[in-house]
Amino acid sequence: MQKRLGRQTVALEQPPVILSSAAVGGKQEGAGPLNEYFDHLSDDSFFGEKTWEKAESAMQKLALSKALEKISLSPENLDYILAGDLLNQCIGTSFGLRDFGIPFFGLYGACSTMGESLALGAMLISGGFAQKVGAMTSSHFCTAERQYRMPVPYGSQRTPTAQWTATASGCAILGAEGQGPKVTVVTCGKIVDKGVTDANNMGAAMAPAAYDTLSAHFTATATGPQDYDLVLTGDLGVLGHQIVSDFFAQDGVDMGEKYQDCGMLLYDIQQQDMHAGASGCGCSASVLCGYLLRGLTEKRWNKILFAPTGALLSPTSSFQGESIPSICHALTIENC
Amino acid sequence: MQKRLGRQTVALEQPPVILSSAAVGGKQEGAGPLNEYFDHLSDDSFFGEKTWEKAESAMQKLALSKALEKISLSPENLDYILAGDLLNQCIGTSFGLRDFGIPFFGLYGACSTMGESLALGAMLISGGFAQKVGAMTSSHFCTAERQYRMPVPYGSQRTPTAQWTATASGCAILGAEGQGPKVTVVTCGKIVDKGVTDANNMGAAMAPAAYDTLSAHFTATATGPQDYDLVLTGDLGVLGHQIVSDFFAQDGVDMGEKYQDCGMLLYDIQQQDMHAGASGCGCSASVLCGYLLRGLTEKRWNKILFAPTGALLSPTSSFQGESIPSICHALTIENC
Repeated sequence: MQKRLGRQTVALEQPPVILSSAAVGGKQEGAGPLNEYFDHLSDDSFFGEKTWEKAESAMQKLALSKALEKISLSPENLDYILAGDLLNQCIGTSFGLRDFGIPFFGLYGACSTMGESLALGAMLISGGFAQKVGAMTSSHFCTAERQYRMPVPYGSQRTPTAQWTATASGCAILGAEGQGPKVTVVTCGKIVDKGVTDANNMGAAMAPAAYDTLSAHFTATATGPQDYDLVLTGDLGVLGHQIVSDFFAQDGVDMGEKYQDCGMLLYDIQQQDMHAGASGCGCSASVLCGYLLRGLTEKRWNKILFAPTGALLSPTSSFQGESIPSICHALTIENC
Repeated sequence: MQKRLGRQTVALEQPPVILSSAAVGGKQEGAGPLNEYFDHLSDDSFFGEKTWEKAESAMQKLALSKALEKISLSPENLDYILAGDLLNQCIGTSFGLRDFGIPFFGLYGACSTMGESLALGAMLISGGFAQKVGAMTSSHFCTAERQYRMPVPYGSQRTPTAQWTATASGCAILGAEGQGPKVTVVTCGKIVDKGVTDANNMGAAMAPAAYDTLSAHFTATATGPQDYDLVLTGDLGVLGHQIVSDFFAQDGVDMGEKYQDCGMLLYDIQQQDMHAGASGCGCSASVLCGYLLRGLTEKRWNKILFAPTGALLSPTSSFQGESIPSICHALTIENC
C-alpha cells in the first residue's frame, strides 16, 4: 500500500524515477543565468510558426521530443502523458501533442501544472498503472500577455509587481525502473484564496497557497526546510518569496537561504529588467527540467522540495470583481 | 498489480464504488425527458448569482454538496477532488471549489471531463492513494455561447448541425469500499484529429476520437457492444452518433440499439428544437450522475460503457485556421 501521511500527502510505495527531461526556452531565457541548462533556445519568438500560440505548441513538441530522444525512447513507449498550459482551453498542449498518439490526460493547474503533472504521473506509476509517463507544460510571454493583459505590440507599461511570463517548456519522463532522481513524496494542494484582487501582483496572491501546501508537507513528513538541499516555489517572484518567508517566520520557522523561487532564478532580474521575476507554467517547468534535475543528477543536491504554485483566475473572473484563488502542489525529489 | 490490457486500458485491481452522485440542471434540462433524475433544477439561469460564470460555479457547489449530503459525508471526508470545465482557465471549477478545502487536481478535457475525472479518480483509489474521491464537471449554455460563439442576447441564428450546451453539473463520489456500481475498467484516449474544421459541427469532429477509444476498449477487453447493456458516448449528438455507428459498421460491428449518446437523451430534440442535440461537459456528467447511475443502482442495467468525448479547440485555434483535435475516455461501470 501507498503510505498516506495525513490528508494531502502520500509517500510513494514505488517511487518513480525521472529518467529524462528537457527544457526549451526563448530569447530572454537564453539571455538569463540558466541558459546553459536548456536543451533548445530560440531567438525567434515564433519558433518557426505563424502565430505565438502555434509557437507554444512547437515548444511542447520540442521538449517532449528531446526528452524522449535523450533516452532513445519513442512516443509509443509512453503509457500516458499528463500536460496542460495557460492558454484558453489549453491549446498549447492539445495542438502540441496532437501528432504523438500518446494516451493523454489534460490538466489545468495554471503555473502549478509541472507539479500537478509530476504528482499524478508519479502516482500512476507507483500505483502500477504505467511503466513510463510524460509530464509537461509550457508558457509563452506573447500568448500570455495577449490573453491576460494586453497584446505585446501595444507596448503597455508594466507595474513594479508584475512578473515576466517565461517563454519556455519543460518535459520530464518518469519510469517505474531505471537510474535517476526519484519522486518520493507528493503533497496535493487545496485552493487557497486570501482575497488578493491585483492581477498584476500574482506573487502575493499565490504566496498563501505555497505556505499552506509547504506547511502541510512539512507537518505530514515531519520535516522542515533544513531537511532539504533546496526548497523551491514555482513563480512567486521577489514579493511572493518574501511573503512565504515571512509567514514561516511567524511560525518560528526560518526558511533560510535554501528556500528559493524558480521565478527569481530564471532571469537576471536587475539586468534583464524583469520587475518581480519570472512567471508562467514554463518557468518552474524549465528550471526543474534543466537546472534542477541536472543538479540532482550531478549530485550537487540530493534532496529537493519542488512546489510550483498556480493562480486560478481568468480575465473574466477579474472583470467580475473576483479575487484570485491559488493552488500549490509539492513533491520531494531525491537521489535515493 | 493493476492489470494492463494493452496500452490504453487498465482493469482496476480494486474497482472503486460510486457511492453517490448528484445532477444539477437549468430550465431546458427541467423541460427534458430526464428531468426526474436531477437532484436540483433551476428556472433561473443565474442560479441566484450576478453573472452566468458565477452561476456555473454555483452549480458545481450544489452538485458536490448534494452528492456528499446523500451519504452524510462532509468535504473533509474527501481525499481528492478532480474537476474541470469549459471556461477559460476553468473558473467554473476553481471558484466553485474555492471554499471546500479539498485537495484538488484541476483537469481540462473539454466535454470528456466527466470521463477523465472518473478515470483518474478511480485509479487514485485502486492504486491505494485515496479512500474517497470526488469527480465533477459543469457547463452552462450562456457562458459557453459567449465564450465560443456569440453572447446569447445577440440572438445569433444556429446552424442545423449545432448542439445546445447543457446548463448542468454532475458530481460522483468514488469510494474504496461500500455499496454501488463499480468502475472496473478504464481506457484513456489519445488525441485524434481528422481535419474537421467546422466548430458548429462538433459531433463530426469528435466522432473519430470516440471510435478510436471505443475500438481500443473493445479490443483490449475482448468485448463488443453486445457485452454491455448500454454503450454511451457523451455529446456527439445525432450526427456524431451516426458517424460512430457507420465507422463500426465498416468494421462489421453493429453498434445496434444499445449504443446511445447522452446528447440525444438529455432533451426532446424535436420538441425542444435542439438541432443536433445536447453538448457540454455538463451533458454527459448530468446524464451519468442522474439517469445512468440511478438505472444501474436500480438494476435496470448491470453493465454500461461510458465514453464521453471532448473537442480540444478554442476560438483562437479556429481563428488561426486549425482543425479540431478531440479525445474520448471510456469507463466500464457495472454492478459486480
